Amino acid sequence: MSGLIHSWVPGANDPAGAFPLNNLAFGVFSTGDGPRCAVAIGDKVLDLAALQAAGLLPDHGFDAPALDTFMGRGQPAWQAVREALTELLRAGAETAPVRAALHDRAGVRLHLPFTLAEFTDFYAGRQHAFNVGSLFRDPANALPPNWLHMPIGYNGRASTVVVSGTPIHRPAGQIKDPSDPMPRFGPCERLDFELELGAVVGTPSQMGVPVTVDEADEMIFGYVLLNDWSARDIQAWEYVPLGPFQGKAFATTISPWVVPRAALAPFRCGPPVREVPLLPHLRDTGPMFHDIDLAVTLAPPGGAPTEVCRTNSNALYYSAAQLLAHHSTSGCAMRTGDLLGSGTISGPEKGMFGSLLEITWGGRDPVALAGGATRRFLADGDTVTLKGEARGDGYRIGFGTCTGTILPAPKRP
Amino acid sequence: MSGLIHSWVPGANDPAGAFPLNNLAFGVFSTGDGPRCAVAIGDKVLDLAALQAAGLLPDHGFDAPALDTFMGRGQPAWQAVREALTELLRAGAETAPVRAALHDRAGVRLHLPFTLAEFTDFYAGRQHAFNVGSLFRDPANALPPNWLHMPIGYNGRASTVVVSGTPIHRPAGQIKDPSDPMPRFGPCERLDFELELGAVVGTPSQMGVPVTVDEADEMIFGYVLLNDWSARDIQAWEYVPLGPFQGKAFATTISPWVVPRAALAPFRCGPPVREVPLLPHLRDTGPMFHDIDLAVTLAPPGGAPTEVCRTNSNALYYSAAQLLAHHSTSGCAMRTGDLLGSGTISGPEKGMFGSLLEITWGGRDPVALAGGATRRFLADGDTVTLKGEARGDGYRIGFGTCTGTILPAPKRP
Repeated sequence: MSGLIHSWVPGANDPAGAFPLNNLAFGVFSTGDGPRCAVAIGDKVLDLAALQAAGLLPDHGFDAPALDTFMGRGQPAWQAVREALTELLRAGAETAPVRAALHDRAGVRLHLPFTLAEFTDFYAGRQHAFNVGSLFRDPANALPPNWLHMPIGYNGRASTVVVSGTPIHRPAGQIKDPSDPMPRFGPCERLDFELELGAVVGTPSQMGVPVTVDEADEMIFGYVLLNDWSARDIQAWEYVPLGPFQGKAFATTISPWVVPRAALAPFRCGPPVREVPLLPHLRDTGPMFHDIDLAVTLAPPGGAPTEVCRTNSNALYYSAAQLLAHHSTSGCAMRTGDLLGSGTISGPEKGMFGSLLEITWGGRDPVALAGGATRRFLADGDTVTLKGEARGDGYRIGFGTCTGTILPAPKRP
Repeated sequence: MSGLIHSWVPGANDPAGAFPLNNLAFGVFSTGDGPRCAVAIGDKVLDLAALQAAGLLPDHGFDAPALDTFMGRGQPAWQAVREALTELLRAGAETAPVRAALHDRAGVRLHLPFTLAEFTDFYAGRQHAFNVGSLFRDPANALPPNWLHMPIGYNGRASTVVVSGTPIHRPAGQIKDPSDPMPRFGPCERLDFELELGAVVGTPSQMGVPVTVDEADEMIFGYVLLNDWSARDIQAWEYVPLGPFQGKAFATTISPWVVPRAALAPFRCGPPVREVPLLPHLRDTGPMFHDIDLAVTLAPPGGAPTEVCRTNSNALYYSAAQLLAHHSTSGCAMRTGDLLGSGTISGPEKGMFGSLLEITWGGRDPVALAGGATRRFLADGDTVTLKGEARGDGYRIGFGTCTGTILPAPKRP
């Protein structure tokens, strides 16, 4: 694993920073004028539309309010831009036009970095699947029979995927406790987060043409942190037989920065032990998992955050490439801007669980927050923040925070 | 119910035709040049881009290859265009510019009429839910406990919604018969169709703001026929616990013409008997169901079609307005171009079932086709065609056919 690539940009060489030259995470920002594409570097964002206009980068549509065009161009274009930016930002290479394209990261507004095509959420964490199966179904048969053979997933709702910082309305819906004779309609009483990693599809596939795991790996533009907000009571009543729907559809928050696949290459690791062999179309063909430390903090209204989870993305049982390959097996066309959530990432022990459902074991064991508050599920005004970083030799790769604050349920209908 | 509105356009006054002046179904067509918006009228399509360019219609983006802009404009704009077209096409009103904008319907290519935002498929037919519950689960408890309280649905895949006539590749996937010790990967052996009606969302709703049933009804631009192709073996192995995924994701076919809400207004009918009262947010507020005769034919390769189903959309238990209102309960944002499938429409008796799964009762009772062939499920080369018509006083309202032919499974991966 090579070390820090030194840069002339302020803050980029901080060994505890999230955005060294090794990262070059992509996003969309604005400063009062129109949103446009950027990379994060040190304490700054670099305006890629300005570099494109100055002829320092090829035209990949960086002046648009989304990375879509660039994402669709594929690995050769992604690699060429990465190399060009590395040369422009390398220590000693400072020039006036590039300096002029830098903005203080603290002063810009960050937007959804790409246009969501569709959002698919998987269930690729073994401990999470076991925990949820124990809580929602039968502890003796917690893992569904299909689980070790393929990545189980469902189509989520793309219209409510929002960028970090967007407030989240508590959803209302039909709720029925097992002891109630009839359902009632009201605000969710078991509101939860889910710690996930999201893979962003860059290049599309054709309808009717499945892709291999290796091809899928090449199609992935990068990764985001993803909070799949969940209404456990709505979900429990609605999900049999067709899966989660309104219990998940109200909001999904992603980090503002898409960390490119290349930045995470040094942190690749191999698959977990396969308890049963995978069928050939899903078989592991190389190290496609990632060693990324993940954490979740929960802050009550006006209070300090408490870390409620610390885990690692290598707890997943299926890689993003396997999720994407499976997604295409039927001939399902994949598109630029498809977002594939990993499913909740829970490590094997308490303290490593990626949702309150698991942390409080279905609300049985409240979690203590700094300042004396406790939580079984989320209260109005609570702020949940996901963080992730891969730790290299003298540098770190971060995503920016993925955060959201809960607003009360809307009054109607 | 008022009668036929007479038109000067050839074929429009045929009492057995699908496209009288009472219909004015919207679509997108091309004739060798770029696709643009149209209405179907008699034996013709009327080029709305040409009328817009001539100043005979306001600018609603009819020169685009999709109805998106017009669909987003809402009921007042839809009504005004409907009235303008009715005046231009009414018997005796023939003019040269309008005549020049007509093309023979048989000679044009029809395209997907709008850009799919997202596709949600419901399960709103009571007989179908009962039949599938009996076949997939437990005949003694066939209807899920939540079914009479809310429209159960799942997010489908929008990237593979295609227009009538598009060939459909047989999907491959993981299959495991109950008696197999392990799953295998291979072509679907239980390929099926599903007869549905699709509601097309015109005007959007805001994230965090649920809509009422009445508001939802106003948001619907129109209706299409919809075939939700289904791989029963893939679906049976994958769907627990998160619902249908690759068993449905490979293709959904819709009719080329969107029949506007206004054209179906004379065919509105009231709700079915409610076995349990609906909660207030879903309660029936008026006649929002439709009396539309539906039929399915199945033709073997090179053979004649056999009608395998005849039913009516009034067999549904939830209206499209109720589906849409439920979809927004959590605050889920709805968008222009969202497509809401009703779920399979099966009448109460044999001969009225809307899928082969039900018609052959899980493959037990093969269906006989003209020419001597039989089918348990679909064979390569089979053509499935959905038809729908509402029958007025001296006229009919049709959708055009919704058809697809099965191609063999792709060879890889």
